[in-house]
Amino acid sequence: MHRTHNCGELRKENIGEKVTLCGWTQLKRDKGGMIWIDLRDRYGITQLAVEQKNTPAQLIEIIDKIGREYVIKVLGEVIERYSKNDKIPTGDIEIKIEDITILSKSETPPFTIIDNTDGGDELRMKYRYLDIRRNPVKNALMLRHKVAQEVRKFLDEQDFIEVETPCLIKSTPEGARDFVVPSRMNSGEFYALPQSPQTFKQLLMIAGMDRYFQIVKCFRDEDLRADRQPEFTQIDCEMSFVEQKDILDLFEKLIKKLFKTILNIEIDYNFPQMPYDEAMEKYGNDKPDIRFGMTISDLGENLKGKNFVVFDSAEYIGGIVLPSGSEYSRKQIDELTNFVRTPQIGAKGLVYCKYNTDGTFKSSVDKFYSQADWAVIADKMQAQKGDLILILAGEKELTLHGLSELRLKLANQLGLRPKDKFAPLWVVEFPLLEYDAESQRYHAKHHPFTAPFDEDIELFNTDPGKIRAKAYDLVINGIEIGGGSIRIFDKELQELMFKNLGFSKEEAEAQFGFLMNAFKFGAPPHGGIAFGFDRLVSLFGGSDSIRDYIAFPKNNAGRDVMIESPSEISQNQLNELGLALKETKKTL
Amino acid sequence: MHRTHNCGELRKENIGEKVTLCGWTQLKRDKGGMIWIDLRDRYGITQLAVEQKNTPAQLIEIIDKIGREYVIKVLGEVIERYSKNDKIPTGDIEIKIEDITILSKSETPPFTIIDNTDGGDELRMKYRYLDIRRNPVKNALMLRHKVAQEVRKFLDEQDFIEVETPCLIKSTPEGARDFVVPSRMNSGEFYALPQSPQTFKQLLMIAGMDRYFQIVKCFRDEDLRADRQPEFTQIDCEMSFVEQKDILDLFEKLIKKLFKTILNIEIDYNFPQMPYDEAMEKYGNDKPDIRFGMTISDLGENLKGKNFVVFDSAEYIGGIVLPSGSEYSRKQIDELTNFVRTPQIGAKGLVYCKYNTDGTFKSSVDKFYSQADWAVIADKMQAQKGDLILILAGEKELTLHGLSELRLKLANQLGLRPKDKFAPLWVVEFPLLEYDAESQRYHAKHHPFTAPFDEDIELFNTDPGKIRAKAYDLVINGIEIGGGSIRIFDKELQELMFKNLGFSKEEAEAQFGFLMNAFKFGAPPHGGIAFGFDRLVSLFGGSDSIRDYIAFPKNNAGRDVMIESPSEISQNQLNELGLALKETKKTL
Repeated sequence: MHRTHNCGELRKENIGEKVTLCGWTQLKRDKGGMIWIDLRDRYGITQLAVEQKNTPAQLIEIIDKIGREYVIKVLGEVIERYSKNDKIPTGDIEIKIEDITILSKSETPPFTIIDNTDGGDELRMKYRYLDIRRNPVKNALMLRHKVAQEVRKFLDEQDFIEVETPCLIKSTPEGARDFVVPSRMNSGEFYALPQSPQTFKQLLMIAGMDRYFQIVKCFRDEDLRADRQPEFTQIDCEMSFVEQKDILDLFEKLIKKLFKTILNIEIDYNFPQMPYDEAMEKYGNDKPDIRFGMTISDLGENLKGKNFVVFDSAEYIGGIVLPSGSEYSRKQIDELTNFVRTPQIGAKGLVYCKYNTDGTFKSSVDKFYSQADWAVIADKMQAQKGDLILILAGEKELTLHGLSELRLKLANQLGLRPKDKFAPLWVVEFPLLEYDAESQRYHAKHHPFTAPFDEDIELFNTDPGKIRAKAYDLVINGIEIGGGSIRIFDKELQELMFKNLGFSKEEAEAQFGFLMNAFKFGAPPHGGIAFGFDRLVSLFGGSDSIRDYIAFPKNNAGRDVMIESPSEISQNQLNELGLALKETKKTL
Repeated sequence: MHRTHNCGELRKENIGEKVTLCGWTQLKRDKGGMIWIDLRDRYGITQLAVEQKNTPAQLIEIIDKIGREYVIKVLGEVIERYSKNDKIPTGDIEIKIEDITILSKSETPPFTIIDNTDGGDELRMKYRYLDIRRNPVKNALMLRHKVAQEVRKFLDEQDFIEVETPCLIKSTPEGARDFVVPSRMNSGEFYALPQSPQTFKQLLMIAGMDRYFQIVKCFRDEDLRADRQPEFTQIDCEMSFVEQKDILDLFEKLIKKLFKTILNIEIDYNFPQMPYDEAMEKYGNDKPDIRFGMTISDLGENLKGKNFVVFDSAEYIGGIVLPSGSEYSRKQIDELTNFVRTPQIGAKGLVYCKYNTDGTFKSSVDKFYSQADWAVIADKMQAQKGDLILILAGEKELTLHGLSELRLKLANQLGLRPKDKFAPLWVVEFPLLEYDAESQRYHAKHHPFTAPFDEDIELFNTDPGKIRAKAYDLVINGIEIGGGSIRIFDKELQELMFKNLGFSKEEAEAQFGFLMNAFKFGAPPHGGIAFGFDRLVSLFGGSDSIRDYIAFPKNNAGRDVMIESPSEISQNQLNELGLALKETKKTL
């Protein structure tokens, strides 16, 4: 070992010891007669001290050369510090330097290696190996490690077996886009990278593995949104001989254990369970943030029939209450109106009603509604004097979405979404099928193997859209952390499902043949869940961005700007793969 | 839960309890009046019993329908077994069936789900989900899980952080072939799948992570040999501020701990360390199996100069002693001769000398050598009366290889390589460079970042082939389990290395630019090791084949015969990727 101790472990008790430390030069201060160096490694910072007059010139010469981020090795004695620093665990001591070696020089880094760096996003990504030296990123990666360890420990204790499923699998024509991998040995043929190990984990249940998990990379060649990565990590789980309740119970325990061990937060209640329909009606959203109220009220029966054409012609009218908002200025309300009119939300306008502190109402549609009308509405919405009622109307789904966005925006403004408060929630009773107007057929809301409620199976003949699925999502603070379902394990039911999804027997066979084939040999009842690991860790870390929790993330164009990938490959490689590039590059 | 207990946990203590079990029907025996069913799940087998005369006809009807591998659910009482079975933990009890439900039917499986199955390799792979139901495969996967857990636990305790490095990286022109992944978002460009996270782990050291590990999938698009897989798993590790000794010490501890926790084998001695040169001279092999002796003797000075042209003209003459082999028949020796003449070995012939029990010598070249000559040789080789001396001659490297193969073959015949005896060994002092006659230049034996011995650096100017590397392999029972090196962290030394490998500055920049760039900002001394996880687990499992320890392996043509991958993709997918297949498929 080049060192006897790391930079985070020396304490008062070590005073008098001769030690050797290695690390990076965080800071060098020359205060006339004394030089101090902050030496940094993963474990912490230790202060080095040199009294110039008592130090050989040769040593001073070396110290003079040392710049920021130089890697050095020092030999010295642990001494008590004159002015202690209670902000760091090593703050009681410093090292009186007796010898020093420069192990590695450093050019001036493109940004400063401090918690609040001056580096912009792209620069930090290009020099990610310097960015990771910073505490926020280093700690994020260490948190990620710790969460993974705890997950594995818990699941191991619960008899889960981690099984590695293959990365080089088969492309399926359905769903989001696969990354494909040309095979050199089988020219003209391709592997695909898995979007999830779904079929493999079901095969493992048929294989009798009983309880499977895997912390596993998945891949999706989608157009990237702000917080999507082409490769991401899942905690993927599947169990046999269980019902929905068993899965929710067990994984609720896991999440509680993680809150306890990672954040020291004790959650001593059962996570609430909310049916999908209720989430949509009350929150306009299938992943509601329930840290705060401000739920949506359906105001159709209150507001229709009063000759206000906009409302009378609307499929749906809904509103939320902004506490203490009656004093909102014209400008503030205009700002909200502009917000709901943005293309992402697409509302035509915003109706408001101030519930003044004197008990009167002042709305933007006073022509159509009386004080008495508003009193009834205020009562229904449990609005208080001094509140502001905000109302959207239009196509139902769109309007609920708008109200949801408005609700979240206002809660953010009001500080109702603190990062250190957590509100877990199971959303359950998802619809099994979703009607797609464009293709004029039903799609599986979760995936085609999700089991319907037993008592809803007869609805396949009458009203398939009403069938509830044995599917569930774990939502924390408005973020979907995981989701899963009980699977169909009965061949006939599966065939009925495929029929309803518009698959011919041949198409079902072509796409899911090997899984269907496996079902012929004794499939157990089974179900599972998958958690977005990147997202779970960033939630624990108190960040909105998963990127900080990935060691080497890609940017929004799917590029790794550090290694400059993707990149062109040689003609030779293309030839070996039996491939040619099309002459005209596709414009994106 | 569909069950109250699994099929492996009921004991005498449970007698009298009402239980519900689920599982697969392993066996049904109808013995006139009594029906027994062996019910199987991951945890074990429990016997179910039905007395026909006391059972409702309806229940008997269901039981009659149950075939092999049906999934059933039974309710019944735990009763003491009349004839106990001490071969299984549940052998004291059986379940008196009160109710039974068929959860899933099964067609007749294509092979029997028993330990010694009648299924051939390809059939087992095609129906891998049935193969995994068999104990040998199921246990192999469970062993794999256990080893992974223990590795993670140990490394976590040693302050290692598991960091996930990316799967979608950049293709490098050097080395074995990369799998590439066309990017849809960046048309005409490709990612590559990592052959190892080598550069990323070095970047993590520069990033100050200090101790990194990862159990990680790697990919190599090589022509597959018997025991290679296009995707395989490594335990990948790297440490900062360490020297070779530190790495060997720490990972020797890991291996010892695995032997203890997995196999309950205590290894209470330091693993021997053998320089590469010694391994080659004594074993003809850089991964010697040291469970047995039969080392190679260099007989050049004994056998040359006696007018035997074959020996006189040979670059090298070497021999091994086969204990108690002097009674070998003509036919047995012919068989050995044929073996060394096979193309894989390529020797011209085999010379032998029987050291008879009466103390005389009888060789195949008695014309040239006297009894006294042989006595000297026998003494040198420590041969005993009754032994057989076997000699090969020719080009040195080839001859040593032949002797090595002969030694292993004979040891196999003699039962000197038992699967339950383990002999770990560090092979050290590898040459840094290897001369390649074809390209007329040196190649890196390990990889271009491996550090040379400090005292050998001056040999760059005089005899580069003689430079020893700070590289090491862990060999157990003749199998290379892991390998690694201390890395160069000095820019100038790295440049000297590239120069010796025939890289121009520009080529080095193009290939390793981003790593070289990172070295400019303060690189710590570092080194690491990677273990072949599939191989390590199969060693612990006592198998020669890694395939049994991979849930869904590919065959020798790189195909997954279960999911039929790789496969063709649609023209639409190709278009989106901006790719075209070459019209004439490459013949392989």
